Amino acid sequence: MTYCLAIKVDEGLVFASDSRTNAGVDHVSTYSKMHTFAWPSDRFFVLLSAGNLATTQAVVKRLKADAQDSWAFSLRTAQDMDAAANYVGKVSTDIQRNQSERDTSSASFEATFIFGGQIGGGESVIFLIYPQGNYIHESSDHPFLQEGETKYDKPILDRVIRHDTPLELAGRCALVSINSTIRSNLAVGPPVELLLYPAYGHGNYRRLLLNENDPFYRSMNEAWNEGLRQALNNLPPFEWEQEVRAVQLVQEAAFTQTMG
Amino acid sequence: MTYCLAIKVDEGLVFASDSRTNAGVDHVSTYSKMHTFAWPSDRFFVLLSAGNLATTQAVVKRLKADAQDSWAFSLRTAQDMDAAANYVGKVSTDIQRNQSERDTSSASFEATFIFGGQIGGGESVIFLIYPQGNYIHESSDHPFLQEGETKYDKPILDRVIRHDTPLELAGRCALVSINSTIRSNLAVGPPVELLLYPAYGHGNYRRLLLNENDPFYRSMNEAWNEGLRQALNNLPPFEWEQEVRAVQLVQEAAFTQTMG
Repeated sequence: MTYCLAIKVDEGLVFASDSRTNAGVDHVSTYSKMHTFAWPSDRFFVLLSAGNLATTQAVVKRLKADAQDSWAFSLRTAQDMDAAANYVGKVSTDIQRNQSERDTSSASFEATFIFGGQIGGGESVIFLIYPQGNYIHESSDHPFLQEGETKYDKPILDRVIRHDTPLELAGRCALVSINSTIRSNLAVGPPVELLLYPAYGHGNYRRLLLNENDPFYRSMNEAWNEGLRQALNNLPPFEWEQEVRAVQLVQEAAFTQTMG
Repeated sequence: MTYCLAIKVDEGLVFASDSRTNAGVDHVSTYSKMHTFAWPSDRFFVLLSAGNLATTQAVVKRLKADAQDSWAFSLRTAQDMDAAANYVGKVSTDIQRNQSERDTSSASFEATFIFGGQIGGGESVIFLIYPQGNYIHESSDHPFLQEGETKYDKPILDRVIRHDTPLELAGRCALVSINSTIRSNLAVGPPVELLLYPAYGHGNYRRLLLNENDPFYRSMNEAWNEGLRQALNNLPPFEWEQEVRAVQLVQEAAFTQTMG
């Protein structure tokens, strides 16, 4: 399994992914699931892959090969983000079909992609591309897209992420929520990759690769644990605890008066 | 779907459940999933039900009928918690088998139960009873059991719940995590039921039924939202934010000197 996530806020895009692949518990490996395609000062794309590893690797290779081929339609020539997403979807379904035709078992060659970026001065966009090649984009009411083990992470995103969340805060939110998923599900594992793409950054972006022992990643998780503990400790008491506390206060007051 | 949860801490037991049942989006109803069986000063049981509603209702009726029957083995006569759990598992599989034999479609009659309580002065215990009638108990490393939509809620439990967590704090944790699941998944819905059973409370317990508009439930959720926001805001900044902040500080210092 996998966990990948993209967030679109007013200030830009956030992409985050884990690096664990597994085919049963005997075949657990580490592969990056974050792929970037950049033509500086013109266009920039990020692809996050989930699903059959052979399919996702073949898709990435095809996207790169097409971009080198001056006659082919490619990410380099797509006129807008929708055309680019449609092209990625078509490459994905072509490769799945090729693999299925050769298959004698009933293996699943399905792959899902989160795809986002910006072309020229156009709007920056994120898409979720289904195994069937069709796709959806985010909305201002639901400014994030997930693939893989999406449930563990959803409550914190549902509560916190709005379109006006600052970019770096959204990035930190993505990190802690990926870490939560890693802690709760063995099929999702480090290192974690994070990419922040500012909407008006002229194509500049920040990319981090965080291992478990990275001091920043560790301090992030310790701060989050501590913050959750504090949030729990600050929850309002049950009614009967208030009664018990009231009795204690009365007793303390009586004691003070007696002493006074 | 459903979300039910039980926690065992040193101070006692926590049981929590939502109240939504659905068979497709056209048949959404509200049913309590928390059932108690009490013989004061002798024994106390809680059953949380998930799965086929006809099965779970039939199981509860059978448990009550057996307890009225002075000749039948029942919760009233079970010699220990394991015997009681085994009996509940057998009632569940008997009822599922009866329903399957009459079935002409291929419907699922499966039900899962969380079952816990205390007999005499014995240890208080929680079990997860599978549709197959077998069961597991919690462990001190993993002091909680869940059924239904378990994933949304797991990260906060994994991070916070230990065997020495105070009972009321574990209860508040169960409430906020059920609320998170409700916000993220339509198949889980209010009202929320919560039961706290102190290990040395001589059979006394606290039970709450919390509707969406209950002032305590609302203040709990607002405090949790605020706590999460604070926890996010207190996360350490990225390295480049520290650099930006350092430049700001230098500029401010220079400005102050100029002004001075």
